[in-house]
Amino acid sequence: MNSTIKALLFDVYGTLVDVHSVEEKCNELFKDKGKEISILWHQKQLEYSFLRQMMGQYEPFINITLDSLRYTLKKLNHDYDNDNLQLLLEAYKNLSPYQEVKSVLKQMKHKKLAVISNGSRDMLEPLIQNSGLEPFFDEIISVDDIKQFKPTPASYTYALNVLGVEREEVLFMSSNGWDISGARSFGFKTAWINRENSPIEELNLKPRSIYQDLNGILEWK
Amino acid sequence: MNSTIKALLFDVYGTLVDVHSVEEKCNELFKDKGKEISILWHQKQLEYSFLRQMMGQYEPFINITLDSLRYTLKKLNHDYDNDNLQLLLEAYKNLSPYQEVKSVLKQMKHKKLAVISNGSRDMLEPLIQNSGLEPFFDEIISVDDIKQFKPTPASYTYALNVLGVEREEVLFMSSNGWDISGARSFGFKTAWINRENSPIEELNLKPRSIYQDLNGILEWK
Repeated sequence: MNSTIKALLFDVYGTLVDVHSVEEKCNELFKDKGKEISILWHQKQLEYSFLRQMMGQYEPFINITLDSLRYTLKKLNHDYDNDNLQLLLEAYKNLSPYQEVKSVLKQMKHKKLAVISNGSRDMLEPLIQNSGLEPFFDEIISVDDIKQFKPTPASYTYALNVLGVEREEVLFMSSNGWDISGARSFGFKTAWINRENSPIEELNLKPRSIYQDLNGILEWK
Repeated sequence: MNSTIKALLFDVYGTLVDVHSVEEKCNELFKDKGKEISILWHQKQLEYSFLRQMMGQYEPFINITLDSLRYTLKKLNHDYDNDNLQLLLEAYKNLSPYQEVKSVLKQMKHKKLAVISNGSRDMLEPLIQNSGLEPFFDEIISVDDIKQFKPTPASYTYALNVLGVEREEVLFMSSNGWDISGARSFGFKTAWINRENSPIEELNLKPRSIYQDLNGILEWK
């Protein structure tokens, strides 16, 4: 099934690294509230990137990450100061990779491997370095270079331009249903890493393959 | 403060009518699960409209409403059939207006009054009729006419074209922070109907006024 695939393109947040691994630091700073902070933070971060895209009010994802954290702490009635924000942002540059990721990337190293993320380089590059994933990738692609967030067609087009391949030669991996839908709509082959055992998004854009973790993509070796 | 305002433009869902008034029907069909169904349903409905806008995969809001309901029932592990979906869609055409709405609209009738909604006409018009609000409005504006969802600038531009006024002559009301942000970004004067006492969205787009319900706009009489 791998005959036409030249590049494996991975989403980062939620796909290679666990965005909810900030819970620990949240719990340290806001006793026992880590889970609810982490969930709302992530939800507002997505919402703000989508809204800014639609309004034509682009901001780098690092600013959106801080803005959504501020909103979350206010909404959940936690007092905070700038030190808290900086500590949590730092934790966001040190998210943990899922346990199977390195082993899978190692076995796929004969292909062209790349990431595409909504994260701006000031948060994405430290994360990829800190997580030990950097040696595996030929390209680290940030949509901040063109200021168009996923899931716009422009964002996926940019990855094609960087990689120098055709859209049908790309296998795209994400754990995010919205990202898989966007990539499928654009014309990538898609593998949904369905880590939370969720239903398929009701968008008439079904993924090519569904796996419970990244080990599933080994069948594309 | 009303000198330049020629038209009052209202969002509908959440602003004039309570989207969570479907809870009752949900509870009838899925015992005691009305609240969690209603919350996730509304959240996915928003997400799907935003995603379809960004992907360039427009669908009328009535389809998105059904798709997000299907996703919600699957995600929450409820068995359902087509009759359930139709009953809930019918309930969505019969949402209850907030208690102060008619009285306020009556007192503002000397202004041009209009609604602009992401809802398609097949769900928006029955709702406005069933809720008894139709006699108050000069225009019922659905973004489905141009197939661009709020909060895109195109959606708010369309309202201007229908109303025949300038953007600074519009006072825009919504309970939805994302909608207020989009309208402010576009250039309307905005009044956020903050029914849930939430923090202001962290988007550097503050509303002109904030009221806890629609009575607040009486100061623009």
